[in-house]
Amino acid sequence: MNETTITARPGTPFIDLVREFEASPALVFRAWTDPELVPQWLGPSETTMTVLEYNATPGGRYSYIHRDQAGEYRFRGVFHTVVAGERIVQTFQYDGRPHDVSLETLTFEDLGGRTRVHIHTVFGSVESRDAMIESGMEHGVRDSMARLEQLLAR
Amino acid sequence: MNETTITARPGTPFIDLVREFEASPALVFRAWTDPELVPQWLGPSETTMTVLEYNATPGGRYSYIHRDQAGEYRFRGVFHTVVAGERIVQTFQYDGRPHDVSLETLTFEDLGGRTRVHIHTVFGSVESRDAMIESGMEHGVRDSMARLEQLLAR
Repeated sequence: MNETTITARPGTPFIDLVREFEASPALVFRAWTDPELVPQWLGPSETTMTVLEYNATPGGRYSYIHRDQAGEYRFRGVFHTVVAGERIVQTFQYDGRPHDVSLETLTFEDLGGRTRVHIHTVFGSVESRDAMIESGMEHGVRDSMARLEQLLAR
Repeated sequence: MNETTITARPGTPFIDLVREFEASPALVFRAWTDPELVPQWLGPSETTMTVLEYNATPGGRYSYIHRDQAGEYRFRGVFHTVVAGERIVQTFQYDGRPHDVSLETLTFEDLGGRTRVHIHTVFGSVESRDAMIESGMEHGVRDSMARLEQLLAR
């Protein structure tokens, strides 16, 4: 399994994630934007995901619900930039913290049939970034990356 | 004329603007979101503004062109949150720097018929924030706030 690198320097409002996949940028991008594929890998493995809306075009919206034994968690955002196989810029909000909207820039780097995904997330404050880390996002992110790797291997 | 306070602490990716207006939050919000009113105040006073799209709803897009004697400057973004008279969260991009997308949170605070507007902008990096400041944005922002004050006084 490839390694997921998560960087969150103290005192900054940024989180950077880097992960490589054994698939082309076109395929990785498709898994990231196709509303049929996203629920097959996004989220901690103990959750199920229901897509309410997933329109990966500039100005399009997404919203989905993660469910586990403890309850439901709804997320939403809008797409600012969508360049197929290359780049996505989108907002992100967890409905439990509606005032903590973040901005995510995803780049899909072609390593010759393989892909390096880089997700740069910027929060409205250092405190908001820290709250996201303390919420246990790392567990969900590492699960998601492993599940995506498995999906791409099928 | 009310004062416009712009804060950009060194080493952070944030810009904070605070400005009070002698009008209700409902009126200030309308001037900020009505495609007929926005071009009457937004931008440096030596420019004219053409709205291409301005749909201030969650998932709506905006784009506009500022023109001065030197040329044309196109801007665009999407609305993440729009709560009438209270709050807007939107992305912002200048087409001349398409990789520098920022996220703006506007709040309209009711001071009893008067309004305090607070705009918190977060950039993808400190360098991107610094480039925005060095582009001379402060001149355009101060002009815009003065023009908006004049519009609201009519």
